Amino acid sequence: MTVRKAYGTLSSPATIRVLASLQEYEFEYEFATGDMKAGEHKKEPFISLSPFGEVPVFQDGDLTLFDAWTMMRFISHCAVKPEKEMVFMDPKKQGIVAVWIDVADHQFEPPASKLRKELVEKPMNGLASDEDAVAEEEVKLAKVLDVYEERLTESKYLGAEIFTVADLSHLPYLYCLMGTPAKRLFETRPHVSAWCADIMSRPAWTQVVDMMEKSQV
Amino acid sequence: MTVRKAYGTLSSPATIRVLASLQEYEFEYEFATGDMKAGEHKKEPFISLSPFGEVPVFQDGDLTLFDAWTMMRFISHCAVKPEKEMVFMDPKKQGIVAVWIDVADHQFEPPASKLRKELVEKPMNGLASDEDAVAEEEVKLAKVLDVYEERLTESKYLGAEIFTVADLSHLPYLYCLMGTPAKRLFETRPHVSAWCADIMSRPAWTQVVDMMEKSQV
Repeated sequence: MTVRKAYGTLSSPATIRVLASLQEYEFEYEFATGDMKAGEHKKEPFISLSPFGEVPVFQDGDLTLFDAWTMMRFISHCAVKPEKEMVFMDPKKQGIVAVWIDVADHQFEPPASKLRKELVEKPMNGLASDEDAVAEEEVKLAKVLDVYEERLTESKYLGAEIFTVADLSHLPYLYCLMGTPAKRLFETRPHVSAWCADIMSRPAWTQVVDMMEKSQV
Repeated sequence: MTVRKAYGTLSSPATIRVLASLQEYEFEYEFATGDMKAGEHKKEPFISLSPFGEVPVFQDGDLTLFDAWTMMRFISHCAVKPEKEMVFMDPKKQGIVAVWIDVADHQFEPPASKLRKELVEKPMNGLASDEDAVAEEEVKLAKVLDVYEERLTESKYLGAEIFTVADLSHLPYLYCLMGTPAKRLFETRPHVSAWCADIMSRPAWTQVVDMMEKSQV
């Protein structure tokens, strides 16, 4: 049997995105974590797997992938089960899912990752948040969420009427930001708020949250 | 017959990426360009097509896409011709193409777009380049091209033994940077240099270059 293996760290949203995909699509896998803060991912044997020295890395037999967005697409592509309609084989339906994945990557994630840095990482390391940066990124995130609010009035999920990786791709940053004052940006938009509650309560995601919480004990 | 329509401007690398895809896969399409510098893409009727107010936008019948990376993926997906093998339906082969598309998006494009701004846009507008920024981004781009050089010793193209959109996605920035001193970063790496010469001489790409050059007359 092919061994699927994910390398990364539970403090990396990109790694979490891959674990969430593996859990959602019910793949068996091994998760190998190392001391990334000590720079293990910049040394051998890791660096040969990940030419840009970044986590996560994913292996499926002789295939090695080293970009988390690709891994998420690949995992959902491998999981095609027509009865579940999790990935569409029709180019137009797939195109709509793809556009919301790219929106997550190019519109949502830049402000979300900067807010995570200011509101989660810095306080965790005893540093003060840059209030001007927080205000600026919140404005950017709010504009993105306005678009989501409109989209979610016409479609139950971002990419389709059913849950897809377009929704899943948001989970790592939603998890971080819901514990910060930026939470109000989601809560004040009713369709966005209902969407967050829905996708964050999926069984596969709660399993990933359990993994993260156990690792912090 | 379905009318495919691309909206954008020939000064936008993202628009160029979409036109290059349409030419490469031999789709008939209309290209509608507006006065983007005057902010037409931030007003109706355009803003309803592009919720983030960005170009390009692509329409295929009742489908509207508003992220250039998605458009490129969609166009190649629609163009599946098994005899040409332009898009692979095997998840693993598609996964390898996908990883190099995401590398283009996440590794190549950030320094390439900053170098374009410093070395092409600023001089065009009579502004001086920021030499420190140029030096910093050249170091980043050089590291990416080192990875490409190694990849291209083992594979004729980035995503496969044949040309795919993983290669195509680089064309708009290669075109810009080859007219700047950053050209040497490509020329000093033999496999990268041969790859550039190869993909830039494809008939579909030379047609796009013609469109750009005519628009500047």
